[in-house]
Amino acid sequence: MKDDFLHGGALDRMQIAYPNAPAPWVDLSTGINPWPYPVGDIPASSWQHLPTEAALQTCRAAMARAIGAPEASLLLAPGSELLIRLLPTVIAPRSVALLSPTYGDHARAWRASGAEVIETADPLALAGHVDALVLCNPNNPTGMVLERSHLGQALARQAARNGWLIVDEAYADLVPALSLAPMAGAGNLIILRSFGKFYGLAGLRLGALLGPPALLEAMSQRLGVWPVSGPALAIGAQAYADGLWQAETRDHLAAARRRLDKILLDSGLWIVGGTDLFRLVKTEKAPQLWHRLAEAGLYVRRFDYAPDLLRIGLPANAEAEHRLAAALSP
Amino acid sequence: MKDDFLHGGALDRMQIAYPNAPAPWVDLSTGINPWPYPVGDIPASSWQHLPTEAALQTCRAAMARAIGAPEASLLLAPGSELLIRLLPTVIAPRSVALLSPTYGDHARAWRASGAEVIETADPLALAGHVDALVLCNPNNPTGMVLERSHLGQALARQAARNGWLIVDEAYADLVPALSLAPMAGAGNLIILRSFGKFYGLAGLRLGALLGPPALLEAMSQRLGVWPVSGPALAIGAQAYADGLWQAETRDHLAAARRRLDKILLDSGLWIVGGTDLFRLVKTEKAPQLWHRLAEAGLYVRRFDYAPDLLRIGLPANAEAEHRLAAALSP
Repeated sequence: MKDDFLHGGALDRMQIAYPNAPAPWVDLSTGINPWPYPVGDIPASSWQHLPTEAALQTCRAAMARAIGAPEASLLLAPGSELLIRLLPTVIAPRSVALLSPTYGDHARAWRASGAEVIETADPLALAGHVDALVLCNPNNPTGMVLERSHLGQALARQAARNGWLIVDEAYADLVPALSLAPMAGAGNLIILRSFGKFYGLAGLRLGALLGPPALLEAMSQRLGVWPVSGPALAIGAQAYADGLWQAETRDHLAAARRRLDKILLDSGLWIVGGTDLFRLVKTEKAPQLWHRLAEAGLYVRRFDYAPDLLRIGLPANAEAEHRLAAALSP
Repeated sequence: MKDDFLHGGALDRMQIAYPNAPAPWVDLSTGINPWPYPVGDIPASSWQHLPTEAALQTCRAAMARAIGAPEASLLLAPGSELLIRLLPTVIAPRSVALLSPTYGDHARAWRASGAEVIETADPLALAGHVDALVLCNPNNPTGMVLERSHLGQALARQAARNGWLIVDEAYADLVPALSLAPMAGAGNLIILRSFGKFYGLAGLRLGALLGPPALLEAMSQRLGVWPVSGPALAIGAQAYADGLWQAETRDHLAAARRRLDKILLDSGLWIVGGTDLFRLVKTEKAPQLWHRLAEAGLYVRRFDYAPDLLRIGLPANAEAEHRLAAALSP
């Protein structure tokens, strides 16, 4: 299970590693909404034809409106993870200050590019002192949030030295007021967005890069003319335009998060962070607890760099909540 | 309609440019099978969860078997076009000999990388003299095919100078005997494959890079861990394992191509090339003919570099065949 540390979502390998766990497994290892946006009928043309420019524009316009970004500042991609990997082929900062801990692929991608990577719990303190400042807002797994006004100041400092501020807003759909999307398109600011987490359709592979025109053009040259699948464009266009579903989902997730908090607190666990899609708990017994949950068919996220932390996603239904509560009770 | 020259499939723009054309439009502008592999029920987990390693492996194994490649030589990607764009970020040949004419993105990607690009009608003659030899087999739009034995010699010459042979086999599902896939994994050979054309599901975005382990590892670092959507993996796994459908489809496409040939020949057109998914015709009146077909709601492919060529895909049904025949008759 070494690779399990890399990312959540490896349920297939958990089933092999714990063959005697009761089925069905409860996968709480990812921060993905367990109540996905409903996938309706996909038009046959979305499967059959190369995605048209019109389909791309429609999805892009809907996403721009949903997140409050200028439409021209937004480039769609098949998931934000690919963008994290490709950013170092498009810009080449020599020094990168990176919020730590955070989603691990940022550090891997920048290190692989040859940049000097400084990991820090307080990246804003390095604003104006590095070629790129990289952070997630809200952060994963800590849930830490940085206010717009502070980020605006960091952006100004970065701009003054012609450096970048790169904000991964994979979880920003939960807290739209935190997003820098309205400022996207201005020089020096790069934003990454993810569709799959809030909308519960991570298999679809849809995300976006927001930034100034020259950056979008360079990334577009990497991605080509048909980067996103037709079904992803069709579903994304619908979901991003569905403000009612978005509002209800925020309420729904917040309620589920409160129920999860109660389960964790009733078990005596210390919640040290999280968002409305996951909670982070800290306990010396995390390794044993992870193993005990796995034996009970519950899969949560652990971290190689912090053996006392566990990240726990939202149970999808009352039965999953009961199983979690039972497995956690001493 | 300037951009129409760039790629086919821009039906949405044709409808705007020719608003009085009779509906429905007959789109013959791409070389995509008009009888797609049937998209059955997609498991909900394919949409909702991050694609699992198991789903990736299953699709990869099915594709490897279908095309006769060693499984370890194959890396899945969201379409071969993305791979064409990313190859110059993974290998850096200084001199590239490129079959011409061919699919235009090859030249664009290598030129953008700063490589010296030599376009030639006979790339094999340059084997052993360039860092990378790039060709499509069968070629698009000419349909020209190169025999395995000739390609094997070219590969040996390229290997002797530690150069690459890069073969885009986007249309090789039509003629499996031409494919170098059984040799994939050997040093110096790179193959690109495309799912969407033969299987008629270009909107799905599925393709593959075949090559030696270090190349696959480098490209995998670019693509990340979830490059392909869950639905694409599910459908791809099924389609690649369906040998009966593949065999019937080859027969079906060959028969449709013979009917298309008859229509073209009966109209006095000169067929100068093609595959079982499209035909290439040469006529001095190509620009007028393209316009006349557009006014009749028929969309075929033209080329900026060869104003006397038109590429015509397979009509999907008897009505489309009749409309094509009628529009072509003087």
